[in-house]
Amino acid sequence: MRIAIVAPSCPLKREAAERVQALAAEHGATLAVHPQSFLEDGHFAGSDAERLAAIREVLADPAVDAVWLARGGYGSNRIAEAAARDLPEAARSKLVLGYSDGGFVLAALHKAGVPVAHGPMVQDVLRDGGEAAVRRALSWLVKRDAAAVEPGVDGPAFAFNLVVLSSLMGTPLEPDFDGAELLIEEVDEEIYRIDRFLFHVSSQPGFARLRQLRLGRCALRDNDRPFGADLEAVVRSWCERSGVPFGGHADIGHDVLNKVVPFPCRNA
Amino acid sequence: MRIAIVAPSCPLKREAAERVQALAAEHGATLAVHPQSFLEDGHFAGSDAERLAAIREVLADPAVDAVWLARGGYGSNRIAEAAARDLPEAARSKLVLGYSDGGFVLAALHKAGVPVAHGPMVQDVLRDGGEAAVRRALSWLVKRDAAAVEPGVDGPAFAFNLVVLSSLMGTPLEPDFDGAELLIEEVDEEIYRIDRFLFHVSSQPGFARLRQLRLGRCALRDNDRPFGADLEAVVRSWCERSGVPFGGHADIGHDVLNKVVPFPCRNA
Repeated sequence: MRIAIVAPSCPLKREAAERVQALAAEHGATLAVHPQSFLEDGHFAGSDAERLAAIREVLADPAVDAVWLARGGYGSNRIAEAAARDLPEAARSKLVLGYSDGGFVLAALHKAGVPVAHGPMVQDVLRDGGEAAVRRALSWLVKRDAAAVEPGVDGPAFAFNLVVLSSLMGTPLEPDFDGAELLIEEVDEEIYRIDRFLFHVSSQPGFARLRQLRLGRCALRDNDRPFGADLEAVVRSWCERSGVPFGGHADIGHDVLNKVVPFPCRNA
Repeated sequence: MRIAIVAPSCPLKREAAERVQALAAEHGATLAVHPQSFLEDGHFAGSDAERLAAIREVLADPAVDAVWLARGGYGSNRIAEAAARDLPEAARSKLVLGYSDGGFVLAALHKAGVPVAHGPMVQDVLRDGGEAAVRRALSWLVKRDAAAVEPGVDGPAFAFNLVVLSSLMGTPLEPDFDGAELLIEEVDEEIYRIDRFLFHVSSQPGFARLRQLRLGRCALRDNDRPFGADLEAVVRSWCERSGVPFGGHADIGHDVLNKVVPFPCRNA
């Protein structure tokens, strides 16, 4: 199996690429790290044009079986819609895996009929215990290991970083949530912002069509004063206001335990 | 003229209320600070029910000529739609002034036919040189002083904090921007977030109907690395992508120079 790595957001560290090469070999996979992954252009892994060209190149390459996003950060929204436009048929036979800022690309490719999943990325190997996250991603990419998948998923499911989701609602990237469950996770935000993002997301017409919402791990920044409600109470309150059932917790997050959530297949 | 003060977001400091009382008297106005303004309930100036009851009470009171928002922070989104529902006729004859998080309330009341404006709030008096901001607000509330109004406004105009605007796009609070100009300002956000909020806002169908976008002052937090483009370039790029002309700068912001931007009158 040949897995191509590209960085539609921020640049990949060479150390991460090297460590993942060895792990991939153990899983019987060959990694092809696109040189674009190491480019730097201000905040981004190369210019918009360079990042776009790289992801389109690997999506179109018949020798590539899967596309693995190098890392998040910020910036894939700037190229996501163009990355998914007029894709060759070869693109629809490969898996795309990523999360965090990569959610913009997942959403765009999902709408274009490419099988995508929310799960660990290459640079997660640099976290403490990060090999486990990368092994989980590889075992899912190579053999669709059911043990890698979020255990509560029992029907159509989407997973997003909450900020990323808020930023794509109402845009052409917004998924069709009809009858699906939505898993959310967050990192480095204060709880008042979580409340505001949930207000925004749950006030969109498309949100009301969800079957349920589940809460992944949220690594919060301190609020400037006690907020007055904990995270689960906040999520439950927006579920109640919008009429979407709260389905409990989800085993996803910006951490090494982050499980894989395959999006529904649009071609099924 | 009788001006009622309420706090739909976070609590007002008593020192601010006291300092503004004296300034109001100089302008021939009587301030009625609603006791709700000083309540504290976690992050908020009282519970949702208390904040909602206070703003509805002053909007319905025929003895009140204007409603002045005490301050921003976070939380008016939680009550904005309910605050504007089934308003008595008396509400439509009074001015409502505020900005920042108060933008949610401005948007909701604007849609309900209440004349609203984006401009300085009571707690701005505590900024260095804040008396000037409060005097500007009072001279606009009391006599619609043209000198208080943002100098570039020459047609229908809206002004919002960018995060607040992003959070209300696609919700029932989203204004009809058809043919209007939009002025944005921001505080305490990194430029990568500004870029992401502008992506979100400018990707909404309603944004494309704007006549132009103007950029107010943005007090940015440091990005974790050089972004690669300055703020004006970022704004210009999203204007280009969305086809909405960039109209230059605007004299608004989270500061004492913040000018008044009256929203278009829905009853005109």
